[in-house]
Amino acid sequence: MPKKIVLAYSGGLDTAVILRWLQKTYECEVATFTADIGNVDDLDQIEAKAHASGIKEIFVRDLTEEFVADYVFPMFRANALYEGVYLLGTSIARPLIAKHLVDIAREIGADAISHGATGKGNDQIRFELGAYALMPEIQVISPWREWTLESRDDLLNFADAEGIEVEKRAGGKANYSMDTNLLHTSYEGGELEDPWHPPQEDMWRHSVNPLNAPDDPETIEITFENGNAVQFNKDAGTPAQILTWLNEAGGRHGIGRVDIVENRYIGMKSRGCYETPGGTILHTAHRAMESLTLDREIMHLKEDLAPRYSRLVYNGYWWSPERIALQEMIDSTQEHVNGVVKLRLYKGSVTVLGRKSQFSMYDEAIASFDDTTGAYTQSDAAGFIRLNALRLRVAAAKGRQL
Amino acid sequence: MPKKIVLAYSGGLDTAVILRWLQKTYECEVATFTADIGNVDDLDQIEAKAHASGIKEIFVRDLTEEFVADYVFPMFRANALYEGVYLLGTSIARPLIAKHLVDIAREIGADAISHGATGKGNDQIRFELGAYALMPEIQVISPWREWTLESRDDLLNFADAEGIEVEKRAGGKANYSMDTNLLHTSYEGGELEDPWHPPQEDMWRHSVNPLNAPDDPETIEITFENGNAVQFNKDAGTPAQILTWLNEAGGRHGIGRVDIVENRYIGMKSRGCYETPGGTILHTAHRAMESLTLDREIMHLKEDLAPRYSRLVYNGYWWSPERIALQEMIDSTQEHVNGVVKLRLYKGSVTVLGRKSQFSMYDEAIASFDDTTGAYTQSDAAGFIRLNALRLRVAAAKGRQL
Amino acid sequence: MPKKIVLAYSGGLDTAVILRWLQKTYECEVATFTADIGNVDDLDQIEAKAHASGIKEIFVRDLTEEFVADYVFPMFRANALYEGVYLLGTSIARPLIAKHLVDIAREIGADAISHGATGKGNDQIRFELGAYALMPEIQVISPWREWTLESRDDLLNFADAEGIEVEKRAGGKANYSMDTNLLHTSYEGGELEDPWHPPQEDMWRHSVNPLNAPDDPETIEITFENGNAVQFNKDAGTPAQILTWLNEAGGRHGIGRVDIVENRYIGMKSRGCYETPGGTILHTAHRAMESLTLDREIMHLKEDLAPRYSRLVYNGYWWSPERIALQEMIDSTQEHVNGVVKLRLYKGSVTVLGRKSQFSMYDEAIASFDDTTGAYTQSDAAGFIRLNALRLRVAAAKGRQL
Amino acid sequence: MPKKIVLAYSGGLDTAVILRWLQKTYECEVATFTADIGNVDDLDQIEAKAHASGIKEIFVRDLTEEFVADYVFPMFRANALYEGVYLLGTSIARPLIAKHLVDIAREIGADAISHGATGKGNDQIRFELGAYALMPEIQVISPWREWTLESRDDLLNFADAEGIEVEKRAGGKANYSMDTNLLHTSYEGGELEDPWHPPQEDMWRHSVNPLNAPDDPETIEITFENGNAVQFNKDAGTPAQILTWLNEAGGRHGIGRVDIVENRYIGMKSRGCYETPGGTILHTAHRAMESLTLDREIMHLKEDLAPRYSRLVYNGYWWSPERIALQEMIDSTQEHVNGVVKLRLYKGSVTVLGRKSQFSMYDEAIASFDDTTGAYTQSDAAGFIRLNALRLRVAAAKGRQL
Repeated sequence: MPKKIVLAYSGGLDTAVILRWLQKTYECEVATFTADIGNVDDLDQIEAKAHASGIKEIFVRDLTEEFVADYVFPMFRANALYEGVYLLGTSIARPLIAKHLVDIAREIGADAISHGATGKGNDQIRFELGAYALMPEIQVISPWREWTLESRDDLLNFADAEGIEVEKRAGGKANYSMDTNLLHTSYEGGELEDPWHPPQEDMWRHSVNPLNAPDDPETIEITFENGNAVQFNKDAGTPAQILTWLNEAGGRHGIGRVDIVENRYIGMKSRGCYETPGGTILHTAHRAMESLTLDREIMHLKEDLAPRYSRLVYNGYWWSPERIALQEMIDSTQEHVNGVVKLRLYKGSVTVLGRKSQFSMYDEAIASFDDTTGAYTQSDAAGFIRLNALRLRVAAAKGRQL
Repeated sequence: MPKKIVLAYSGGLDTAVILRWLQKTYECEVATFTADIGNVDDLDQIEAKAHASGIKEIFVRDLTEEFVADYVFPMFRANALYEGVYLLGTSIARPLIAKHLVDIAREIGADAISHGATGKGNDQIRFELGAYALMPEIQVISPWREWTLESRDDLLNFADAEGIEVEKRAGGKANYSMDTNLLHTSYEGGELEDPWHPPQEDMWRHSVNPLNAPDDPETIEITFENGNAVQFNKDAGTPAQILTWLNEAGGRHGIGRVDIVENRYIGMKSRGCYETPGGTILHTAHRAMESLTLDREIMHLKEDLAPRYSRLVYNGYWWSPERIALQEMIDSTQEHVNGVVKLRLYKGSVTVLGRKSQFSMYDEAIASFDDTTGAYTQSDAAGFIRLNALRLRVAAAKGRQL
Repeated sequence: MPKKIVLAYSGGLDTAVILRWLQKTYECEVATFTADIGNVDDLDQIEAKAHASGIKEIFVRDLTEEFVADYVFPMFRANALYEGVYLLGTSIARPLIAKHLVDIAREIGADAISHGATGKGNDQIRFELGAYALMPEIQVISPWREWTLESRDDLLNFADAEGIEVEKRAGGKANYSMDTNLLHTSYEGGELEDPWHPPQEDMWRHSVNPLNAPDDPETIEITFENGNAVQFNKDAGTPAQILTWLNEAGGRHGIGRVDIVENRYIGMKSRGCYETPGGTILHTAHRAMESLTLDREIMHLKEDLAPRYSRLVYNGYWWSPERIALQEMIDSTQEHVNGVVKLRLYKGSVTVLGRKSQFSMYDEAIASFDDTTGAYTQSDAAGFIRLNALRLRVAAAKGRQL
Repeated sequence: MPKKIVLAYSGGLDTAVILRWLQKTYECEVATFTADIGNVDDLDQIEAKAHASGIKEIFVRDLTEEFVADYVFPMFRANALYEGVYLLGTSIARPLIAKHLVDIAREIGADAISHGATGKGNDQIRFELGAYALMPEIQVISPWREWTLESRDDLLNFADAEGIEVEKRAGGKANYSMDTNLLHTSYEGGELEDPWHPPQEDMWRHSVNPLNAPDDPETIEITFENGNAVQFNKDAGTPAQILTWLNEAGGRHGIGRVDIVENRYIGMKSRGCYETPGGTILHTAHRAMESLTLDREIMHLKEDLAPRYSRLVYNGYWWSPERIALQEMIDSTQEHVNGVVKLRLYKGSVTVLGRKSQFSMYDEAIASFDDTTGAYTQSDAAGFIRLNALRLRVAAAKGRQL
């Protein structure tokens, strides 16, 4: 039995119910932790709610800068994309939460953490692998895997019975679940469950419908240093500022909506809709910056490992030695990923218009290098081709058919 | 010294000059081969030109169906994308040409082939690796690596001196080189050489500018069988027909333009612009079809090998045992990639709206399977997570820091 | 609750106890299945024991040929080696057992299977993943994860209480657990648990101590067809015969003992000792045969995927689409892996002395090919090197430090 | 035309002839560089020879420690093995020579380097890629690709005509070529060209025939720190000392001979015999040390990339950004690869007897960890297996056949 529990607490219906359920079930102290990673309107209100529930140790932290600098940006340096499409907006937030839950547990002498993720999803794994990796003796309480409540109605009844105040949603409830942070918003479940049917237009929160986006394209420039975006147009900014500006620009032009069927780590396919306006622009820009500044074989090595890295993040292995070893390699390649990428935003699409860099591997100097040092003479290609063909010719000469 | 040469002949300035140069330099018979893979307006005219140059053995072949069925579609089953962006439209045409050059050489007893690719590009490699792999004793004559001509003006002077009739281009010449086939059109060189500057709008030939595309989106459906597109909306078609229809739809909506810096096999970076309207739609649709019908680990295996496969195609190793072994694996996964994908085309972007399949791994049946057989019970996740966390906990308990 | 259970039954203490426990716990019919894959001395005796326990449906099957032909040989075509050392002798037997358990379940209308693997090992996973993959509605009963017995003494007490006859081991019991089949014998646990201490010499059952092996080396030849051993010295044989002969030869010379620390799928390290005399020879010989007959890039592709394939087998994913897709690719490469390998067996080591093949890519013909067709001219190497160096020179010229 | 050339000079027939040929052909100054990397008996004598040839700038350097510390050991941290067998003894020496050639060229204002590697081998590539990568403007002169001499007799005639003194070999010449350094000795060509015939016993120089090795096995211990061997039995030593001691021990027991058919980068298969006594022991020991101290997924990541790393070294890309990026990742994993490995050397084989480490992931602590924290409970395995089986069950339930 736990003695003190730290709960990842948003103040919404689920975690409000969990809070009470933990108090009743374990009869121990519960502390709450609420992170603002771009998803919280009113931290004071959440704090007040926790207070009203009798919580004494209430932690609220603005982690937006930490989130973008230490989680989002490293991941974007890797060009991570789960199953070729998903920018991992939810996946990357969980290890940050896990770290703070555990830090707080250590701080206040708690021996357990708890969270509101369900037993069918990926987030439980991400929270728990992170917590176990950082504090191996921690206990994890996952109410959705333990209690008998099974639906929103069950929660409402429980709240009612326990006198927990719940905000009634005006005009009907959203028929899907949602997760938001500075990188993205995700939508899953409910009416989205038929992958043949597109979502209702009013589902999307952070981007305009491309059909309603401005008729005039917008041209922007992103400046990179060591693989990180450091400037948007003329404005230098912190990681979170840059991402915020990119979100605004992307959202304005309907950029970054995807609607996919993905494979969860627990073994089932699910359908998810994701809205990642700034991240979509950033991903495109970073690849363009790399195309100019990275060595070919470094690009190909990164490319070969990017799916593996992406799966580690998706599956919850941010806090693992293998993700960190890959990150070492990736980060060691970003020294020269400096320069500017120019992009056009227009009705849902982001298009690279140009890229330049003081570390460009493609520029005038190459041509002149070429000429003066004889680095490239066309006749060299004959030998290059003939030696590369040798094994194929031998095989063919010996009668092997392709 | 060759006795008879088969020349890949387009009838344009370059190959017209090469034809004469071969005749003069090697004083032997030259046969011409012209393939229509969606790039040729008037085969008769080309034939007439070759005839006028004194060629007796003139081969013209309509290879559009062979091109799409045996080259383009297998490559799309692999989701090939060079350096994450390029759909390999030129790369995939070369091995087809190589094969026919060699077939004709065998047919007419020629001992050499020749082509018009330059000594700085990828195409020379693709032609020659293919030819060597299929006919190891063949001689390859690559005039651009051998003669002293170095520019378009040199060619024009040569043509003039030799009385070769050359069509004057109306209204100035394009300041870049171009390659077209049913899959794509590429633009390289000349005014494109500064990667910071976007191309002139009038460069693009096969798609409308997204800014001028229709204000109304178009919804289309593509039906797949075994990973191949077999129907467009209500119309079944051959591979080349389907691709043609997709090109029309994509071109209408400004889809499939990319502007990239890529790494050539010969070791330099180059800037290329590519226009692949139908291929872009097809790639997106095929991935969506796979997301519904493929096993997770099959998807991930394909994903891990796709960059390698793509590099093989880009580098000219279509005719190699390793490309073929990978293809065996890829093709073995496509048996159930059947169904329909619905997409929206709108001002340069293609968006998946839905996907359905009789082989869906995501549908009602999963849920009910779940319920009746206990395939999924939430509490299983606890054990799943704890065992996956075990090595991380052991490490942390032993004091290793992440 | 199951209605009828098929138990993987060896007749030893564990499965004898499990049999009774199943009968008591589930009060349903139990059928037994005993496979001979080179591990069973006396099938009749096992059958008699099952009979004595009141079992009506008793299945005993000699699967040695199926085991070697359909499981061992395909795996050796892949050069599988878990963590660089382990030839997967136990791992490869489990999917065969799983398949027969499920086949029998279907045959006799059973709805559950059971096995004697513990809850800390890999074998439970291999049995169960196989069974679920082949018969998704099957129930799996894993007594070691369910009952309260925890040690050999508990089993003996249970047997005593239930009147189950157990053979007393003469002269003390082995202090480790053991698994045997035609490919190998494994030893784990007990006195082996300190990885600093080598096992007792009398542990090893199927090979002589290298120090006691004959002073005279033995030279043998293995003939391959399509990647499979088909002849030993002058004797053609079935797969199981060949493996038996190789075991005898290897065992005689102390070949194939390894003592390793490995990583289990369930997340802990364990120490295992394995004795694989014939398999060790076969692995070495197959690689040597491939070195002569496979294309370089095919070898490298196989090499890159071998660890992944090996992990699939180790982790229990024999019956998975990804193992099968990899197998398709691997098998497609074995068409020319034909010829003879000559090896020396001597005091624990196996040494390749020679290899020859009608499909050799290395022989006189290459040299002459070389000379007459100009496939290789030394000056080609200059161009080959210069183009491969180009990107490196460009980088250095631009001041990048290595 | 070069103004001053630095020649990699061994003082043997080949480089003595090359020296003169360079002087005559380019009529410029030539400097010589001789590295001792464990291959040189008498540096003074070589220096004297160079002097006698009129060379003014003579560089002789003892690089054994640099060789082992900065080239051999990093490569062994990667467990590199080309095509599963070859420990890369020659490959790893070339980039060191290349670096010093270039350093000297810079030092003395030379604009060219030269070497004695032939145009059919790998070494020319390794020298030249290294030189180009480190000094992009360097000219490389590869006499074997340029002159008309083609055989040893041609060289002898040239030497005779030029009055170059050549040591006559006593009692006939070796019919193969040889390369030696502290890591290994290689033998190629000549009588080795038939891969069916084993080499003459008297070819091997640095190890006893296993059949003649001592009847008594020798037990040794190697101590590792951060993945590097730092102690042999009770003796701490520098990298070169450790390797020397291992060579002596391995050579005494006939360890480390391999006879293989390998694939050269220039496209042909070749047969090579390699003698790597100390390296073979070190490779085995390092893997054993890692098996105890590395995380599973780190091991698997390293394993997946080891063939790629090995090919980079073999193909001459030591001095490349991709080798260095991989090295960063590899080195970042070696922090805890500390401890002791005990091995038995006996008649050609090296056997791990035990391994221990203060960073062991396998020891008593794991078991107790297990018990007190509930890290492992057997019933967790049920959930683990069921979730891992889920996708397989869904597929089977939908009628997909494996």
